[in-house]
Amino acid sequence: MKLWQKNTTVDSNVDTFTVGQDRVLDMNLAAFDVMGSLAHTQMLESIGLLESEDLVLIQKELKQIYQEILAGQFEIEDDVEDIHSQVELLLTRRIGEAGKKIHSGRSRNDQVLVDLKLYFRHEIEEIVTKTKEVFDTLQQLSNQYKDVLLPGYTHLQIAMPSSFGLWFGAYAESLVDDLEMMLAAWKVTNKNPLGSAAGYGSSFPLNRQMTTDLLGFQSMNYNVVYAQMGRGKTERILAQGLSAIAATLAKFAMDGCLYMSQNMGFIKFPDHLTTGSSIMPHKKNPDVLELIRSRCNKIQALPNEIALMTTNLPSGYHRDLQLLKENLFPAFTSLKECLDILKLMLDNIEVNKEILSDPKYDYLFSVEVVNDYVLKGIPFREAYKEIGLSIEAGTYQPSKEVNHTHEGSVGNLMNEAIEGEFDRVYTSFNFDQVNEKLVSLVL
Amino acid sequence: MKLWQKNTTVDSNVDTFTVGQDRVLDMNLAAFDVMGSLAHTQMLESIGLLESEDLVLIQKELKQIYQEILAGQFEIEDDVEDIHSQVELLLTRRIGEAGKKIHSGRSRNDQVLVDLKLYFRHEIEEIVTKTKEVFDTLQQLSNQYKDVLLPGYTHLQIAMPSSFGLWFGAYAESLVDDLEMMLAAWKVTNKNPLGSAAGYGSSFPLNRQMTTDLLGFQSMNYNVVYAQMGRGKTERILAQGLSAIAATLAKFAMDGCLYMSQNMGFIKFPDHLTTGSSIMPHKKNPDVLELIRSRCNKIQALPNEIALMTTNLPSGYHRDLQLLKENLFPAFTSLKECLDILKLMLDNIEVNKEILSDPKYDYLFSVEVVNDYVLKGIPFREAYKEIGLSIEAGTYQPSKEVNHTHEGSVGNLMNEAIEGEFDRVYTSFNFDQVNEKLVSLVL
Amino acid sequence: MKLWQKNTTVDSNVDTFTVGQDRVLDMNLAAFDVMGSLAHTQMLESIGLLESEDLVLIQKELKQIYQEILAGQFEIEDDVEDIHSQVELLLTRRIGEAGKKIHSGRSRNDQVLVDLKLYFRHEIEEIVTKTKEVFDTLQQLSNQYKDVLLPGYTHLQIAMPSSFGLWFGAYAESLVDDLEMMLAAWKVTNKNPLGSAAGYGSSFPLNRQMTTDLLGFQSMNYNVVYAQMGRGKTERILAQGLSAIAATLAKFAMDGCLYMSQNMGFIKFPDHLTTGSSIMPHKKNPDVLELIRSRCNKIQALPNEIALMTTNLPSGYHRDLQLLKENLFPAFTSLKECLDILKLMLDNIEVNKEILSDPKYDYLFSVEVVNDYVLKGIPFREAYKEIGLSIEAGTYQPSKEVNHTHEGSVGNLMNEAIEGEFDRVYTSFNFDQVNEKLVSLVL
Amino acid sequence: MKLWQKNTTVDSNVDTFTVGQDRVLDMNLAAFDVMGSLAHTQMLESIGLLESEDLVLIQKELKQIYQEILAGQFEIEDDVEDIHSQVELLLTRRIGEAGKKIHSGRSRNDQVLVDLKLYFRHEIEEIVTKTKEVFDTLQQLSNQYKDVLLPGYTHLQIAMPSSFGLWFGAYAESLVDDLEMMLAAWKVTNKNPLGSAAGYGSSFPLNRQMTTDLLGFQSMNYNVVYAQMGRGKTERILAQGLSAIAATLAKFAMDGCLYMSQNMGFIKFPDHLTTGSSIMPHKKNPDVLELIRSRCNKIQALPNEIALMTTNLPSGYHRDLQLLKENLFPAFTSLKECLDILKLMLDNIEVNKEILSDPKYDYLFSVEVVNDYVLKGIPFREAYKEIGLSIEAGTYQPSKEVNHTHEGSVGNLMNEAIEGEFDRVYTSFNFDQVNEKLVSLVL
Repeated sequence: MKLWQKNTTVDSNVDTFTVGQDRVLDMNLAAFDVMGSLAHTQMLESIGLLESEDLVLIQKELKQIYQEILAGQFEIEDDVEDIHSQVELLLTRRIGEAGKKIHSGRSRNDQVLVDLKLYFRHEIEEIVTKTKEVFDTLQQLSNQYKDVLLPGYTHLQIAMPSSFGLWFGAYAESLVDDLEMMLAAWKVTNKNPLGSAAGYGSSFPLNRQMTTDLLGFQSMNYNVVYAQMGRGKTERILAQGLSAIAATLAKFAMDGCLYMSQNMGFIKFPDHLTTGSSIMPHKKNPDVLELIRSRCNKIQALPNEIALMTTNLPSGYHRDLQLLKENLFPAFTSLKECLDILKLMLDNIEVNKEILSDPKYDYLFSVEVVNDYVLKGIPFREAYKEIGLSIEAGTYQPSKEVNHTHEGSVGNLMNEAIEGEFDRVYTSFNFDQVNEKLVSLVL
Repeated sequence: MKLWQKNTTVDSNVDTFTVGQDRVLDMNLAAFDVMGSLAHTQMLESIGLLESEDLVLIQKELKQIYQEILAGQFEIEDDVEDIHSQVELLLTRRIGEAGKKIHSGRSRNDQVLVDLKLYFRHEIEEIVTKTKEVFDTLQQLSNQYKDVLLPGYTHLQIAMPSSFGLWFGAYAESLVDDLEMMLAAWKVTNKNPLGSAAGYGSSFPLNRQMTTDLLGFQSMNYNVVYAQMGRGKTERILAQGLSAIAATLAKFAMDGCLYMSQNMGFIKFPDHLTTGSSIMPHKKNPDVLELIRSRCNKIQALPNEIALMTTNLPSGYHRDLQLLKENLFPAFTSLKECLDILKLMLDNIEVNKEILSDPKYDYLFSVEVVNDYVLKGIPFREAYKEIGLSIEAGTYQPSKEVNHTHEGSVGNLMNEAIEGEFDRVYTSFNFDQVNEKLVSLVL
Repeated sequence: MKLWQKNTTVDSNVDTFTVGQDRVLDMNLAAFDVMGSLAHTQMLESIGLLESEDLVLIQKELKQIYQEILAGQFEIEDDVEDIHSQVELLLTRRIGEAGKKIHSGRSRNDQVLVDLKLYFRHEIEEIVTKTKEVFDTLQQLSNQYKDVLLPGYTHLQIAMPSSFGLWFGAYAESLVDDLEMMLAAWKVTNKNPLGSAAGYGSSFPLNRQMTTDLLGFQSMNYNVVYAQMGRGKTERILAQGLSAIAATLAKFAMDGCLYMSQNMGFIKFPDHLTTGSSIMPHKKNPDVLELIRSRCNKIQALPNEIALMTTNLPSGYHRDLQLLKENLFPAFTSLKECLDILKLMLDNIEVNKEILSDPKYDYLFSVEVVNDYVLKGIPFREAYKEIGLSIEAGTYQPSKEVNHTHEGSVGNLMNEAIEGEFDRVYTSFNFDQVNEKLVSLVL
Repeated sequence: MKLWQKNTTVDSNVDTFTVGQDRVLDMNLAAFDVMGSLAHTQMLESIGLLESEDLVLIQKELKQIYQEILAGQFEIEDDVEDIHSQVELLLTRRIGEAGKKIHSGRSRNDQVLVDLKLYFRHEIEEIVTKTKEVFDTLQQLSNQYKDVLLPGYTHLQIAMPSSFGLWFGAYAESLVDDLEMMLAAWKVTNKNPLGSAAGYGSSFPLNRQMTTDLLGFQSMNYNVVYAQMGRGKTERILAQGLSAIAATLAKFAMDGCLYMSQNMGFIKFPDHLTTGSSIMPHKKNPDVLELIRSRCNKIQALPNEIALMTTNLPSGYHRDLQLLKENLFPAFTSLKECLDILKLMLDNIEVNKEILSDPKYDYLFSVEVVNDYVLKGIPFREAYKEIGLSIEAGTYQPSKEVNHTHEGSVGNLMNEAIEGEFDRVYTSFNFDQVNEKLVSLVL
């Protein structure tokens, strides 16, 4: 029986139901739980709630556990409820009573809050880094294929000349705006909730600014009631950040599936990246793109799922919030896998350089031709009429050259400016500064 | 028959179905459509596509129309399809052929894109301004009632002492993080799509940087395919920004409804802000709070609605996007009304100063008392046991004083720091700079 | 000042905010509110709570008001809050004190509950009827074009021969399953909540079975707490019914937009049902299909919106529920318009009978040919190898005939069985029985 | 290398990405995959596509594998892609070439379609059965506590007398309507897709009616294009059925959490079903109810998630659909666990019989008292005035007796009628008939 427990054994069905998948999911939090304790105990000692010799023991052993976690030598034992209990148990086994002192001035509530924030920061960094790799690849493809024309559609009707330079570049630029959403999520995440206890603070003279600094947070969730209110809210906002990137990937995948159809035939991939059938040699199924689309659309549904699970809960902790781990944690993994495999696909994409030789695309250039006439001084209506008549007469023969010069057009992609925008947002995360702090903490 | 139209009259059922509510909704865009044309025509003249004398005529008349719109003297005529046609029609009626030239180098697609962006910027400013008013009121209430205690709940069970200072302050701090989301939405919005034509650019030598500057945009949506892809995406991201604020308001309203229940009795409002019955004099129905909650939950559903309407559409314009006006435009109005009426409610809120005199709240202080003992040097387990025994014996008598000192706790709300955070985000919008540009344009 | 009102005038901002769009939306409920009162007052008289002479007066005048509503001669006056007040006001103006008695034994809560149920039944009937029209048209097209082949796609890759018979027929059969969902919604709707008062019943000896019979309900929401709980729930379930039909329409529209693309060229529509440009004569924009898709996807978002607005509300009435009118009422209109215009489009659709003459579709038949060999006794692997080799050698020449005979295949569409299924579900609604009851009530 | 595979090894990253969690999730389908093959092979033999001696061998071995699955002695081997391949592999290992023949006239597409339908039927039966257990328990509690009064709330304000009889009974009746939704989902599910091959049928003379009968389906998805279209749609509709039950459970859990708060104190549970703290002896945290609420709200989000993943996909198979397993399969387990644990909680619930002795509930009866006067012949306004004055004067003393007699009220719960309604819907599923067919098939 634990100190905090009543003289009653909880029903085993209840135990199974309430623990849920926490033992598995909490493994993601292990390293971050140790970080939180490293900072918390330094702070406890500084305000006189922990003896210096205990602190030395604790820090040494926590750093040892941290290394074991990194090395994959850590597990949550069968009868241990969660990651926090497991770390405390290991510590107490190894250094005795001192191990129990890491819980002073802290509640399970703010402990999990800070673990989640640290974990989320880590995942944001990974996702943003992988997003940068996809961005770079799209930019490179845009530059490489800037002269290869592609029909541009409106209403899925053939409309105006476009290019692979524009197509790849558009998705690169899309990721710039997505990164703004991730940056907002990062800012909301990067505030320290530790010290809020069960959501109403503590009568101990905690130094929250100290743990904020040690853990590399930009600032703190000041108000302790708000610190608790951040649970569920941080998840929802972060899910909105993920969903921005996911929406871009899903849309690219939709384009890709369509462009791979024999009715378009704009792009293809080598056999080892598609599935098919030897009796239908033309068939190259875009399973990877379809699953990117599907996974990303699932991620797009995530903010709403979180909203439904948290809406109309009054302020203060509710156990409902525990379940959000199940939603969000797998979404990180899924999105990272999508980014990785999309990069693999892009590295192997083959573009069709002869698309516009098909006469069905001739009309693409009709607006171009009218505009050319106008620029040469022929009144618009006259130019328009002339082209219209030549189309009617079947004598229309476009040059199939595109001389667009303005910013962002076929002939002037502005990829360097777009890269500049990406870098501006990317450097705002300032991941290095955070990581330096954490390294000081755990080494 | 229009120039661009085929030799066929569109079926009237089709016409009604496709125009939908555009005539009504487009009234919101009127002023911004004129702004777009003012900038576009200056640019056309600068690249030689418009005569100087025509520009003078056009600018003078557009500014006149702008004034008429502000004065409420503008309407979309019955047989006119949308705002763009109405402005062009008025212009042509008044200055003749020159009026038709405002359409050169522009498509309906980028015209509506820029109108929407300008309108969205305007609405963001209004919402952020009203959010600031609610923030200020919450801060003021937090300071005013910082010494009035309130039970803090976890699992809806009475748990730890809280205060009105914490409660109001938590919602104020919540708005800081919400504003980060709005700022991301602002950044995504504040880029110029004009010049992207139908999503594939133009063969005219447009100067997109010039219209970007004239309209006060931070930068542009460079890639023209991406500029078009921003439709639907901007709306979704903006809806996520709105939903952040809405979620905070809805949660406050839920707390408020609960706190007004006779079973809590923590707050009340004067009669003229509630509804009730003279035969049930105790009954003060929180209709306003319930409708804030309901409207805000509806807004929370909006990003998902937009996602469902745009998911899996390949790149390029689709008419589907037109319908997003119906979703988003009323949400602006609704959220602004919620912010206004919430401020009215907060200005009149009455807090119960005697809540904790009810003995059912005595246990709130048990953890406090144990902590006090610990701070005085009594080992935790001993302190814990002693308090436990006194509770059991019925002799437990808490002092009902809360001496929390750490950052963000009952005794140290850190409201100035929170206000600093709010102002930091608020000033990042830099609304004044945008407005100065627009004033130069229309005067 | 009203009897039920406190000695306080409600703040005018509060009044505006709380009334919202009720005056407009409640016009939809007018006829049904009168029906409810016709039944309620007959019942009141039967249990001695209304004098017979008063009943006669009331019934006569209510029937008169009913006729005025049908004739469009009814309106909710500016200072009247909602439909219930307006009907009571008219009645009292015309027949004096007796008019006020219609409110006995009834609360605003169960009055609006019954109005909504009656209105929903009406809308369900209209939507189901229009769905039947679209079903019949799809069936007719399936039969008409059963011999016109179409490529069948998997993964958007050309895969197997399909036909217009299958394509139209599939969407017809889809509506059968959608109708099952509408039938469930109908059953949930078709239960009488009247007599539940404010959700806790009444001390008057009401005869709820009598109003159930008079209003043609199948049964009643017995438990009065559940009757109130049905608000929001009925709406959500009904929205799920609508979303089933909407999903089918949206998918058809997606197919249609794709099939109209020049890269497919499978179907087209006459010019008066599309939009286009004379300079791009090939361009026929499927605006109607795109707006069907968009509107229907919006309807698909509706159940979730309602869930978000009602989740985690404890039992008992909350004002939040009022706002659901704004969501659901326009969805009825929108879906009915989509069904009407889809029928118009289907009545004018033109199918391309020469699709498969394009050699890119030759591979469609490779599996057919292998199967033919197998049926003739050649071992599968041998047949497979032979076809594979002929494809490789470029000598593969499929017959392009499809001899499918099993149920539901190209050669055996089973449209009569599908029609039988549709009719089975359709007749289960038993609309006539309900309408007969209502006719007796209002005449 | 497989027969159907091209001369290329699929990239191992692609393989991992595309297989996803199928190996784990497909274990749920094992028994049903065998059933499908049992029926399919009987049919193949009947149309001459399988030798009788082969059929005998195959049936014997499939039944053996079925027993092994039931006994937990079956697994999907590491390098085997999915359940279909594993069964075929086992069969071929044991009976040689004949094992490979089970795939004739069938595609992976319709094989997984029929597996899913059979699995869904099984899960629907389990959920409906558990729903019945909860329904029965709620009914029993309603009857047991029909005389224990409870305050009824509107707007969370104390309003009118209610009772535990009404409260438990309302949730029982709610399950009746939920079951209507499940029945619709059952009807949509209970149609045979087998024989649709890859979504375009087969040139073999399949007898689809025969497999429909053997597998106990009510009818079939006739049109083969529609049969494929049912994937994703069936899942969405089924998720809507689950969400109906989930919404009822979540709402009950919300009430329960509120009613357990010390501010209400209406119900409690024994210690072994709650969590708490010995230093806060009053605190009994409703973790189980909170997690029921949270899980059920997650299930409420499921239909929307499925809609987002399937919207705007043109007809024909897409790999996206595979991912729906990940969404729906765990939802079955989660909802079943919620139903089980809710029953456990209900079996142990303790209701407070003395709630209304608290004077804050006295006003509950004011409307009762007025109505009593009216029934005794005193004009309403006079009665109303008198009670109003006595309340004002502080002399109001209600009798606290509730004499409601009408259908569904405190004094006349109509639980038998509600039970009748439940049974009517329950028996419509006709599970026994289906199960008899399956028993004949596998024994």
